[in-house]
Amino acid sequence: MTKVHSSYFRDSILDYPGLTLVGKGIDLGNGCDVDFADGLEYFEQDNDVKVVALHVEGMRDARRFLSVANRVAHSKPIVALKTGRSGLAAEAAQSHTGSLVGKDEVWEVALKQSGITRVNDIDELGDMVKAFSLLPLLKGKRIGVVTHTGACGVISIDACQKSGLEIARPSSIAMKQFSAVSPPWLAVSNPVDTWPAIMVSKQSPTEAMAEAARAVINDVDAVLFVWLATCQQWCDEHSQLMMELANSCPDKAFIAHPYGPLAHEAAAKLEKTGKTMAFSSPDRAARALSHLADYSHFLGCF
Amino acid sequence: MTKVHSSYFRDSILDYPGLTLVGKGIDLGNGCDVDFADGLEYFEQDNDVKVVALHVEGMRDARRFLSVANRVAHSKPIVALKTGRSGLAAEAAQSHTGSLVGKDEVWEVALKQSGITRVNDIDELGDMVKAFSLLPLLKGKRIGVVTHTGACGVISIDACQKSGLEIARPSSIAMKQFSAVSPPWLAVSNPVDTWPAIMVSKQSPTEAMAEAARAVINDVDAVLFVWLATCQQWCDEHSQLMMELANSCPDKAFIAHPYGPLAHEAAAKLEKTGKTMAFSSPDRAARALSHLADYSHFLGCF
Repeated sequence: MTKVHSSYFRDSILDYPGLTLVGKGIDLGNGCDVDFADGLEYFEQDNDVKVVALHVEGMRDARRFLSVANRVAHSKPIVALKTGRSGLAAEAAQSHTGSLVGKDEVWEVALKQSGITRVNDIDELGDMVKAFSLLPLLKGKRIGVVTHTGACGVISIDACQKSGLEIARPSSIAMKQFSAVSPPWLAVSNPVDTWPAIMVSKQSPTEAMAEAARAVINDVDAVLFVWLATCQQWCDEHSQLMMELANSCPDKAFIAHPYGPLAHEAAAKLEKTGKTMAFSSPDRAARALSHLADYSHFLGCF
Repeated sequence: MTKVHSSYFRDSILDYPGLTLVGKGIDLGNGCDVDFADGLEYFEQDNDVKVVALHVEGMRDARRFLSVANRVAHSKPIVALKTGRSGLAAEAAQSHTGSLVGKDEVWEVALKQSGITRVNDIDELGDMVKAFSLLPLLKGKRIGVVTHTGACGVISIDACQKSGLEIARPSSIAMKQFSAVSPPWLAVSNPVDTWPAIMVSKQSPTEAMAEAARAVINDVDAVLFVWLATCQQWCDEHSQLMMELANSCPDKAFIAHPYGPLAHEAAAKLEKTGKTMAFSSPDRAARALSHLADYSHFLGCF
């Protein structure tokens, strides 16, 4: 489902760590006979293709591309890494593929208006191909954070605000549920810090996570879980909980930032569920959720 | 060599993928008896510690901290993730560690003036602990890019410009060396696209990389290699070349963005040399080189 200007993307995205979702690619090269619009129309017809990823240096007929993209974006998400931003880069692109690059500010607006998700680097491109494949679109931008560490609660707030997401303020009734298992000195709010509850109550980390999720779930469109991946049992139990939540609330996204020695294994396990995914930082997680919400907004879902 | 506000950093950074360099950590927690300045002074005396990484939500005596940090930063690099940027995050930090967070704009200037390398997320924190441990400081901001793919040349220019680095324009004599092995239609410049030379000459990918490096090396402070990690032999040969360059030019940084199915193995191999390192994108590579140059500038090296 990729469509690229260069073999780099065929070799890097198709081998993106853990990404076994990419099936089809078109390397346009210099595009002397077929162009981006042709490729988009081809993938539009292909029911196997769920997400279209583009690497664009520039092109000759941007008007036709944007018109086709706008139509295709109504039926499947399009993610684009548009490079050649600076004058020097534009020169290099012209020497590489003969593309006319154009002003970056114009591309920024044009891509957005066409409903294309623009990403800024190769890591984000990989994240978004996965996110659109694995997660539901968001109904809004209200985020809940359930964390094993207060530090990552603070980091997650920073990350959400940077990405234009809203840290939801759940109703006091919902919060009271979790206060009941937390120590009395803790001012329970969102992000929900579960570690004090784990320390004082008889709950396992997964039970505390489940309880915290129940405290925020009705007031949010997505939950970011931050959890310690330090032993196999926790990874199994936490992943299982996230999959159950994804099954019972299919219109909300459940994602994780696992940390610790088994973080990579935890990420692979989450992605194998086909319904949840992991990010290497709260910042990358928030960036992805924000794109999911923006695309959903483009489709008129909220 | 970490000094943190929370167990999150003990568990995440100390287990950062491939990072076996972190030896010592102080978890200050609420810091009711020792604070950041005390920790910095302790690590200042410790010759085992080469780099100090901080996670700071806020603190009570910022004046003393900045004064101690300024002294310590003259003898070893300090990397800081300062969180609690927004009002809501500051509130959460106060509830987490009782820290007074303060205006983020003030922190930005104060950290910079003290010679502290401020990072924006946990990925960048890990990158910089590695970069300061493995790479030399840069004498300037002139970057050379040697790549197997023209696309990544364009991306690397974008990344360098975003990070305030300069894509060097090597002398025409140096460029002529590489033009001699490239096809005549290629306008050889920096970034140096090696693939056309590999296709038309009898050179192996590593030989072409070596030749391209020789064409830019005298005019740059660092070289970013972008190479295809698709078979073990290439990974071995490319890593070997990069280590030889690092040995023969110890005041320049040689880093890579390997891509393809063996990218992870290639990264591990490079970092084991103790002299070079890999990044998951040209963007992260450029960000790190920029920090190395800024710190070097702070020390008065250029």
